This record gives sequence, structure tokens and C-alpha cells, in this order.
Amino acid sequence: MAMTASSVLAAVTPAPGQIELREVARPSEALDGGLLKVAVTGVCGSDWEFYQTFPKQRGAVILGHETVGWIERASRSSLDRWGLAEGDLVALEEYIPCTHCAACRSGEFRSCRATEWRSGGLRYGATELGRDPGLWGGYAQAQYLHPNTVFHRVPTGLDPKYAALALPVANGIEWTYLQGRAGPGETVIIQGPGQQGLACVAAAKEAGAAKVIVTGLSTPNDRARLQMAKLLGADHTIELGDEDLLETVAELTGGQMADLVLDCAGVEASFLASFHLVRRYGRVVLGGHLKNPVANFNANRIVAQYLTVKGVRGHSYQAVEHALAMLAADRHNLRKLSTHTFPLAETDTALQCLIGKGLPGAIHCTVSPLQ
Amino acid sequence: MAMTASSVLAAVTPAPGQIELREVARPSEALDGGLLKVAVTGVCGSDWEFYQTFPKQRGAVILGHETVGWIERASRSSLDRWGLAEGDLVALEEYIPCTHCAACRSGEFRSCRATEWRSGGLRYGATELGRDPGLWGGYAQAQYLHPNTVFHRVPTGLDPKYAALALPVANGIEWTYLQGRAGPGETVIIQGPGQQGLACVAAAKEAGAAKVIVTGLSTPNDRARLQMAKLLGADHTIELGDEDLLETVAELTGGQMADLVLDCAGVEASFLASFHLVRRYGRVVLGGHLKNPVANFNANRIVAQYLTVKGVRGHSYQAVEHALAMLAADRHNLRKLSTHTFPLAETDTALQCLIGKGLPGAIHCTVSPLQ
Amino acid sequence: MAMTASSVLAAVTPAPGQIELREVARPSEALDGGLLKVAVTGVCGSDWEFYQTFPKQRGAVILGHETVGWIERASRSSLDRWGLAEGDLVALEEYIPCTHCAACRSGEFRSCRATEWRSGGLRYGATELGRDPGLWGGYAQAQYLHPNTVFHRVPTGLDPKYAALALPVANGIEWTYLQGRAGPGETVIIQGPGQQGLACVAAAKEAGAAKVIVTGLSTPNDRARLQMAKLLGADHTIELGDEDLLETVAELTGGQMADLVLDCAGVEASFLASFHLVRRYGRVVLGGHLKNPVANFNANRIVAQYLTVKGVRGHSYQAVEHALAMLAADRHNLRKLSTHTFPLAETDTALQCLIGKGLPGAIHCTVSPLQ
Amino acid sequence: MAMTASSVLAAVTPAPGQIELREVARPSEALDGGLLKVAVTGVCGSDWEFYQTFPKQRGAVILGHETVGWIERASRSSLDRWGLAEGDLVALEEYIPCTHCAACRSGEFRSCRATEWRSGGLRYGATELGRDPGLWGGYAQAQYLHPNTVFHRVPTGLDPKYAALALPVANGIEWTYLQGRAGPGETVIIQGPGQQGLACVAAAKEAGAAKVIVTGLSTPNDRARLQMAKLLGADHTIELGDEDLLETVAELTGGQMADLVLDCAGVEASFLASFHLVRRYGRVVLGGHLKNPVANFNANRIVAQYLTVKGVRGHSYQAVEHALAMLAADRHNLRKLSTHTFPLAETDTALQCLIGKGLPGAIHCTVSPLQ
Repeated sequence: MAMTASSVLAAVTPAPGQIELREVARPSEALDGGLLKVAVTGVCGSDWEFYQTFPKQRGAVILGHETVGWIERASRSSLDRWGLAEGDLVALEEYIPCTHCAACRSGEFRSCRATEWRSGGLRYGATELGRDPGLWGGYAQAQYLHPNTVFHRVPTGLDPKYAALALPVANGIEWTYLQGRAGPGETVIIQGPGQQGLACVAAAKEAGAAKVIVTGLSTPNDRARLQMAKLLGADHTIELGDEDLLETVAELTGGQMADLVLDCAGVEASFLASFHLVRRYGRVVLGGHLKNPVANFNANRIVAQYLTVKGVRGHSYQAVEHALAMLAADRHNLRKLSTHTFPLAETDTALQCLIGKGLPGAIHCTVSPLQ
Repeated sequence: MAMTASSVLAAVTPAPGQIELREVARPSEALDGGLLKVAVTGVCGSDWEFYQTFPKQRGAVILGHETVGWIERASRSSLDRWGLAEGDLVALEEYIPCTHCAACRSGEFRSCRATEWRSGGLRYGATELGRDPGLWGGYAQAQYLHPNTVFHRVPTGLDPKYAALALPVANGIEWTYLQGRAGPGETVIIQGPGQQGLACVAAAKEAGAAKVIVTGLSTPNDRARLQMAKLLGADHTIELGDEDLLETVAELTGGQMADLVLDCAGVEASFLASFHLVRRYGRVVLGGHLKNPVANFNANRIVAQYLTVKGVRGHSYQAVEHALAMLAADRHNLRKLSTHTFPLAETDTALQCLIGKGLPGAIHCTVSPLQ
Repeated sequence: MAMTASSVLAAVTPAPGQIELREVARPSEALDGGLLKVAVTGVCGSDWEFYQTFPKQRGAVILGHETVGWIERASRSSLDRWGLAEGDLVALEEYIPCTHCAACRSGEFRSCRATEWRSGGLRYGATELGRDPGLWGGYAQAQYLHPNTVFHRVPTGLDPKYAALALPVANGIEWTYLQGRAGPGETVIIQGPGQQGLACVAAAKEAGAAKVIVTGLSTPNDRARLQMAKLLGADHTIELGDEDLLETVAELTGGQMADLVLDCAGVEASFLASFHLVRRYGRVVLGGHLKNPVANFNANRIVAQYLTVKGVRGHSYQAVEHALAMLAADRHNLRKLSTHTFPLAETDTALQCLIGKGLPGAIHCTVSPLQ
Repeated sequence: MAMTASSVLAAVTPAPGQIELREVARPSEALDGGLLKVAVTGVCGSDWEFYQTFPKQRGAVILGHETVGWIERASRSSLDRWGLAEGDLVALEEYIPCTHCAACRSGEFRSCRATEWRSGGLRYGATELGRDPGLWGGYAQAQYLHPNTVFHRVPTGLDPKYAALALPVANGIEWTYLQGRAGPGETVIIQGPGQQGLACVAAAKEAGAAKVIVTGLSTPNDRARLQMAKLLGADHTIELGDEDLLETVAELTGGQMADLVLDCAGVEASFLASFHLVRRYGRVVLGGHLKNPVANFNANRIVAQYLTVKGVRGHSYQAVEHALAMLAADRHNLRKLSTHTFPLAETDTALQCLIGKGLPGAIHCTVSPLQ
């Protein structure tokens, strides 16, 4: 099967946890917007949830939203609007914002309600195949480009598979620096060594943090990720269970605890620990989706310790630009996060890596229709 | 002469300081974007400069950029993009930003280089008639709506002539509060009681400033504007020349001087005075276009007094929304700024008001094709 | 009984919930620091907790920490250090900070660990009589002045009983404006119409909030306080129970909810409601001491709504200065908060007002040894 | 000559540009405050001005204010107030603040008017010998410790001569990071490679700046300092005159110019260049004392480019703590700034180094009475 004048090969998820390679019709030339020839698409942690639940809720879907590729064609008005030309190599954001609401007008398009897929909004990799023109995901030879797409030029010389790290690294920048205000000389604790947590490690070092501590589980998977954390600049890693977390951190910080705690694990234990790992007047950034209510929360700690707590999601435009600059300069060993690239036919294996079942040592995988 | 199916009546400036009523061709239906039926367009101080110089530099022009009106028609894709429907009453920003540069993506579209008319950029009321589709200004029965237009809905019940105050009032909000950080209890000095300066008075009171002092010249024109300043909430006004400015302010503030000084006059004297009117650790906001270099500037005062100095221009989206809310609630007597409305045929008289030659007591004038 | 050369009359709490008028020895002249002749001392909500528990934990105590009075005498070095002279009328902060820790050196002395009475630190109105020189509280004819005391000059002409409002009003400024960043045009919800909540109402209006909504219980006590809230500028008040809180707020705000929610009630219900009363990207300020853990907290709302949550306690120096300026100018009807003054012998009645048992309509009471 | 029970050896400046070793009486034990046994005192650029002018204006003086030493003795109340014990090794700030003004109470004690030596205030190294108890400077065996002294503990293991770098390095932190908000990924230009400029280089790297550019003169002295800048992390250095400054910077930054420009040279040329070296929306920090008015300043550039300009002087407490942490960890090769230590008898030579006449290659010198 190959990309033809009239069809595009795509990894379609027709039912939860299933992938089928299908030929999907190419959008008509007359369509507003354009078409991207996909180079490579990153596999994001949120893909796993979509993989398991989306088809039941909204129907078949092409997943994948960390897309990098070349503008294949686009309407004149769209190219003008984007400031791009056919052939340009670009990294896409997952958001397809409305462009006119107060959030969009203020540079906060990541919270534009039009991007909320849960309420029927548009988002790359999370919009059903049945919605015209269908090619809404990155695990395909081509992806539709809505006129409201947010683009970033890939810096000259940066391999597309590294450019596909732009979004997770941008989350690290956004959460750690732009929202968390990590600064020089500070102690930063990052709970959870997943893609987001690792990106936060690099972002904390980028912002000059003097001491970065990362926590993870005592599993082979997390152990490998804590190794990676060290490679990215973490000063200390802690395997939970082996040692008393609070005592260890107290020891590592001379009793000062952290200026900033990032919860990238998003479970009750990490949430609750955050308020004890942080110093008086410190900051807690909550970056993980907490699925269940917390049963027994000593909320007074926020008051008694004068804490600031911030909920964060996604990234701003400037965070993605910063991420691409960091990747282009290969700072903090960031490119090492990219561990595997799979052909389109192995999209399922790539997704299994998210739960530690694909290939050992996988951290950030990409799917490429060019392989 | 009237608006017809094929033409639109417009006040064209073919040469410096001249206005002619002309019938201008209506843009083709096929054009991307849309057409606004103009209700009223405000007369801005910057119009005077354009009136005197633009035609020589770029050719005939329809001036006017504080436009309020109804969407007459627009392409489907433009309406989607704007979140508007035909018939909606809207206030326009003067900027026509590119939408994709870093400034646009960060909510700073007012500094998008595409809006710099001096370098060939597009801006309402400052784009030549010869550039398709010609209807780039508000002093006309209809104005072309570029797809990148920035819209604000006029709050229900707000008269269009008051909505036409949105941009100058937004400048006040932007300069005084969003950039100048005027806060409760503070002393704010505003130099120059023009439209911008008066808007800053209202904005300072809106932000809770305890003491607002406005300076102006000892001319009948400025004297009337200082009266208006009081109506908007100024606690003190000072006519320059009659009294020693620094001594008077020292007396009014118990020797503390101002937390924030806004220079809306933009002349050498006001610029230099700013650094003496402000307290140690205070803020100076420069909002006026300083035409000539300053001959003898004791710059060390910035260092010795730990000052912060900020240059400001225009307004953000949120400032315009805030301005419309203030006008809708008629706070601070803001609507009194709107003193006269002229028919299209008297656009020249409306413009003469800017230099004190139109009608006495004129502050903010509007031109309406409906009169 | 009267103040003599060798003794001072004081309202001593020897056991929980008891007050005895006692003659306490005057500190020796040689002592570092000085002595304040008390004019009036405000009754703070926290006094009630101290009244009920302190003597058991630390022994007999003179309560009262919102003290206003005249410097009676002080050592030369203390006067130099304070920039004061004997006879000066001053309002005291409750904190007795160490002056040399990082918090003290950075203007954050309210969090200096030396002020934590729970860990044996010094604080006016919360230090045992047995600790030399004993006169640590304001419900007495005189109060000891530790060399590290933080003073504010009472503005000329301001009645001491109004100056005694400086600390609660400062809390309002600190929580609402300095920490909560309430700004012009915003909607602010304040839960709990106690002294702190009412001070937050005035502070929100001072900062230019467009819509201030206050919630309280359907009790006679809270009902009177909600009336007071209106007097201070609240736009709407809501009695809990009568109406659905979230629906009412949605209606009052056109579905926007609040930019800023202050929880001054500090109970589970108000804590949990905060996260639903606030808009996306909004701010929640927690000002009340939450006695018990929260049983079932949907913490993910912080993440999903991009919220910022801040715990606050007490006030900064600049907040107290601002409060005194507001009281001196009688802005927002703040002086009406001062409802009753009791003689020293009726200190118990004054304290009973805190739980609605003293006098009806009591809001801020003062105790004065001069009555 | 040696330190005796009754006298202290000091390098006294009796007349401009002169140094005499003298025995100065030790302050009486009864004096409030205490006495520091000096380990080493840094030579600051401002010493040169004092050396040339102070004696004429105020009389003989012991210069030196970057003092590090051990508490020899102090009154009980002073030790309590300082949180220190005899024998502690400390670094002193030059300021002797009043402790009670609004600036002192807000952590801004560096701008306390009591520290302004020009108006008779107290400051170490700039207070005349004739003022009791005389030992106000660091170029001596012992220095008087005023009760209001601001102390920092020297981190364990840090050599006093490196601790003597705390103040200039703190200036770098304050100007570049705390005031200038240098951040990760940014381009920072530092004009003037003196002690302050070099400290700014390290601070910019500490804050994660991606590109640090330093300018200096084409003199042997500056050339050596530009070499040092590279050692501290500067990415590029520019010798003025050899190349067109603006063109070079445009080239180095791909036409973007700098996010932040620090003027540490404080001459007209550097002041004027700042406004062309900075990008639109960028920040200019003025750290040098501009002796003369600027003759021809195009102030409109601040407006047209939306610039923020900040005047800075000295350092905050937290900046000094940060500096000591950086020195203790030997980050950015900071210790290399310390090039020479002189015995007390050679204080004049140490001071001559400030104008390039002492020893070649001198950057930060110290004077030690222990040598």
C-alpha cells in the first residue's frame, strides 16, 4: 500500500486498543486549509487513554498529535495566514483553536474551548475519522491542516524525530519555568519520571536550578527513566519505597526542602507528598491528571506554609519555540529522549511502549510513514 | 449621494489636509473577509498626522480607525473564524495582524510587524485607497473587513458613539494599569490632558489610585480638558506656567511625589519632568511619540532613584474588552468624553477639532455616515 | 485599681475562658525595649482560640495584639532603632520577628519562625505572663515593647479605636490585593463575612473590583455582617442555604464565575466550593485556618481549570500602612467596622462578641483601659 | 605594629589618594554592637572615588566595605539580634540601614536613606574616622560592628578571600536576574567588563541565558577582562572600535538583538548604544553611574520599541546569599575573579589596581591584615 493521488495510508483505531492500516481518501484540493506530508509523529502518554476509550465515545480515529512534516499543499489564503510556503518543514501543535475568543486573543489558545475534544472540539489526534476531511491524526502518511493550525518552523538541521519532541519538552518549559518560575539556585523536585517529568528535569536545569531531584517507582521501567533523568541533569534520583521520601529529601536539602515541587505522577500519593516536599512559601505545580478525588487532604498545609499551588496543562507558543531551540542546540542531552522510531505498520507496538510493553528502554517513540 | 449596490460613499483624503466625498466601488462579493456597515467612527489624535502627511507618502486614503458598525456580509470561512454572524454590532481594532508571528501567538498582536503602516503594513485608516479593495478606513458608509480583523462585540445597549471610545479608553487601561501597574492607594500623575491622558485618568481611578494629578497648558483648550479630567475623577489639576510644577506636586503629595508618572504629552519638557515627578523606586510610563531627540538628559536619575521606565503604544485585546465594560457600565463619567458627532460631509471639521479649531469643547468626536 | 509607679492593671486569663483583673509589676527601667501606654486594643477572631486553649498549654496570659498606644518610655537605643520618640502614638504589629533571618531580611517578617508562638516564639497577645517581663498583651494599661517590635505611626487625627482596625484591614489588603492580585473590573467572591472577610470586601473595592459577592450563613449574626458588607461596597450578598450557591453566582456573573475567590470561612464546605466558584485560570486564596482534613477533594479541578491557589496568613508592613491610610481617609466606610469599645473590666464580654454572645451587632470591638 | 589590647592597625586615608598605616583606638567594650576581626576585605570600584574625594568632604577615613571576618566580641543584645555568636565567620554588607523605615521593612534596605553617605548617612568604608567609634572601614585589623549591621554567614569551607566576592557577585545577581529578569534561552549583552560586568556574566549564565555577549575597550586591561568573561561563560566578546558594534551583534543574534542589555560602563556611548542593542519589547538595565547628562538622546526609541528601562544600584539580601552559594559551589569559575591579596601595608597598591596601575591582570583584589 502506498500514498496515491487519491488515498493516504493511515493507522486507524476502529475500536479500543486496535490498529488497522487503511487507505483513507485524500481531502479535496478545494478544501480550505491544506495537507501535511508527515515525516514523523511522536507518541504521547495521552495517546494511551485515547487508544483505549476514544472509539467507543466518538468512533474510529487516527491517533497521533506530535506531528512533524512538510506542507504538501495548501490554499493561498491559508499559506498567507500561516506565513508558510509549500515544502516548509514544520512541527504542529495539537490545538486547533478558534482564534477569536479572549483566550486566543491573549496568547492562551491552549485553553480555547474549541480545542476541548471532550465537548466536541477539534484537536489533532483526537478527532474522529468520520468528521470531514478525516485525516485528523499524525499516524498516517498525511495529515489535514485546518486553517487554524498552530505551526512552528523546524530549525534548520534538526532531524524531524527530534523535532517531534517539541511538545513534551515544551510542557517541561511551560510547567517548570513559565508557570513554576523555577529559577537559578533553586531546589526543584519532580515526581514521576515519565516524558513530562523528564522534560521538566531539562527545563529546571535550563532555568538554572541548582539541585534537581526526581522520584520514581522501584520498577525496571522507572529505574531506566531515573537513569535518563541523570543524563538530562538531575542531581539526585529517589526510588520510592526503598527510603523514606521526606527524610531523604530533608537530608539532600539540609532540611530546606524544595522551592518548587512538580507533580507529574498525578496519583494521590504524589499529590499529598507535594505539600510536604515543599518549603514554606514554596510552589507546587500539579501537572498530572488526578483521576480520583483525594480521600484525606490536609488542606491547611497550603495556608500554614503560605504555599502557591498551580494547575498546569499543555504549553504556550513560546514554550514550543524554546523547546525547539533547546533541541536544535542539543542542550541537556534532550535528544536522548528519542529512543525508537517505528514504521506506520507498528504503531500498536509504539503505543504499547507507553505502558512498558513495547520495547525495553523506550522513552519517547515516534511513528514514521517514511520507514 | 447614497450607498448603492455597487458603490459606497466615503470621505477620501486625496491630498494633505483635504477631504472629498467620493463614491468608491463596493468590494466584490467573492472577496475573502467581509464588509462592515459603519455606524460611527471615532476621531483619533493620530488622524491629524495621517491627514497631513499620508497622501504624499502613499496616496489617497480613507482615514478613520475607531470604527463601530454591523457586519453587512462576509464569507462563511471568515464568519467562522471571527465567531460572528451578519448583523452583529462590533467595534474594530485598528490592527490587522499577521496572526502567525511570535507576537501574534503571544497576545501581543499590537506589535506585529504586519501592522506597521510605515513599512507598508496594513492598518485601518492608514492604508491607501489604491490597495485593493480600497475601503480601509472608517470615514465611509462601509469598511472592508480583512480576514485578520480583530473584533469586539459591542455590549448590549451601548450606543455605537460610546463604543467608538473603546480604543482610546483601552489605551488608558493598557498604559496606566496593565503596563504602568497603577494600584490602590497610589499617587498617579498624568501629563497632557488629551484623549489618551483623559483615558488614563479614568483608568487610574478604575485601578484604585488614591490621588490622580493631571497637568496641562494654560490654554482654553487644555483648561476645558482639565475640567473634564476632574469629571473623570482627577483629584488635582495643574496648569503649567502658573505654578512651579515640582513644588506643587511636592505639596500635594506631602513630599512623596508620584508612584507612577504617565507622559502623554510627549514633549521634551514633559519627558524631563517625569523623572523628577516620580518617587524613588517609582515608575515612568512614556506614552507620547517624542518627535525630537532630548538635548540634555540627566539619565543618571534613573539609576540613582531606582526607576523603572516603560515605553507604551496602543492596547491589548483585554484592554479593549475592559474599556467596553467600563463604557457599558458608564463608570467614571467616561461617556462624557464623547462630545460631538459629525456627518460624513463634515469629516474635515471633525478632524480640525483635534487641533482646537473645529468646535470649542470638543474632546472625542465621531463621524457617522448615518447622520 | 489604677496604674501606679510600680504596677499595671491587666486583664489576665489564668485558665481557659476566664478573665481576672490583676495588678502586674511594671518592667524595670533598665530593661531593653520600652513600655507602651495602651489607648485601645482590638479584639481579633484568633483571640477566641487563645482564650480557650492557651493557659492550659503555656500558662496564664494577657491576650490582645491589635494594640494602639503611646510610647511611655524606652531605652535610647530602642528609640533610635524604632525612629520614634516618647509620646508618639503608634499601632503595633503582633509579630516580634528575629530581624536577621532570610524572611526578616526580605520583608517577609510575618513568617519569621521566631514569631511562631506554637513553637515557643514570641508574639504579642500570645506569650505567657510567666515570661519576663510579662506584659506581652494589649488588654492592659501598658504593654511591654520588645526591641524588635514593628511599629506604625498612627496618622494625625485618626482615633485610636479606628487605628486598632489596622491589622484586620491589612489582612484584607494583603490577601485580596497583594497576594490575590484583585484588579479593576474583576469579580471577587468572599466566603465568610467575619472581620477578615469584611476587610477583604473593602480591599476588593479599593483595588477596583467591579463585582464583589459575599457569602454568609442564614444566622442573625451573619445576616448583620452581610449588611455591613454592603455598606463596605459589596455588590451582592448570598445567604447560604436559601439558594443554590453555584447557580446564584453563575447568574450574577453571566456564567463567568469569579476571577478571584477568597475563602475566609475556612470550613470544608467553603474550601470545596472555592474550586467551583472560580473561573478557568482564576485564583483561589485560602485565608482561613482549616481545622480538619478535607474528606473528598476533587483536586483535579486545579489542573483541569488551570487554577492558582494561594495560602495566606497575616499581613506585610506595607499592607498595614495602606490600611492606616484607608482608615485615615475613611474610605469604604471602614470605620463602621468598629462597633463597640469596652473597659478593661469587660474584656470577657468583648471576647464573647467573637462568638455572637457579647452584644448584638458587634463586629470589631476594642478594649480600652482608658474607659 | 600589631593589634594590641588597646589599639588596632588600620590603613587610614587622611587626604585624597593617600594611605597611612595608623594605630587606631579599639572601641570600648561597653559600646553597643561589637567588633569584627577582619580576615580580608575586597577592593570595590567605588573605593577609587572615595579614595580621591572623601577626605576633602568629610575628613580622614578607613576605606573598604567588602569585609569578611570573625565576630571578636559583641554585646549580648547585639548577638541576639544578629543570631550570631562570637567566633562566627561572616561577610558584611556595606549598608547600615535604619531598620524601621518602609524600605527596611520591605526588604529594600539598600535604599534606606540612612545608608546614603552623601547626606551624612552611615556606610562601611564611607564613614569618617572622626565619627565614633572610628573603625568604620575594612582595611584594618578590626572593624566596628554597628547594631544594624547586615550579616551573612560564610558557607563552611569557603575561603574568606572568595567570600569577599559576595558583594560584587550579588550585584550581578541583582541586576541581571532579580531586576533584569534574565531567563533561560535569552540573549544578554553586558557593556563594560569591570567587576560588576563580569559578575553579570556569571549571573546571566546562572539564570540560563543562552547567549552572553560582553563588550569592552581595546585596551590591555579590558582585553584581559574580556578573556576572564569567557572563562565565566561569555559566549562572545567584542572589542569596541575594531568592529561596528550594532552590526556585530546583529550578526551574532541573527538580527534579533538582545532580550536584555546591561550597561555596566555608565558612559554616554554605552547608554545610547543600549537602546539599539536591545530587541523590541526588550529590557535595558542601567547599572553604571552616569556622571554627565546625555547630550542628544532619542528617547522615542523607548516608546517605539516598547522598551523597559530600569535603574539599579547595589544588591538585596537574597542576592548576597545567592552569591555566597555560587562561590561555595565554585560555579562559573567565579573564584577566578579573585586575583590578588595584599597586606594592609599595600592597600594603596590594591587600590591602584582599580585604574589598571597596580598589578597587571588584577581583577578583584583583597586586602588582608593577616598577611
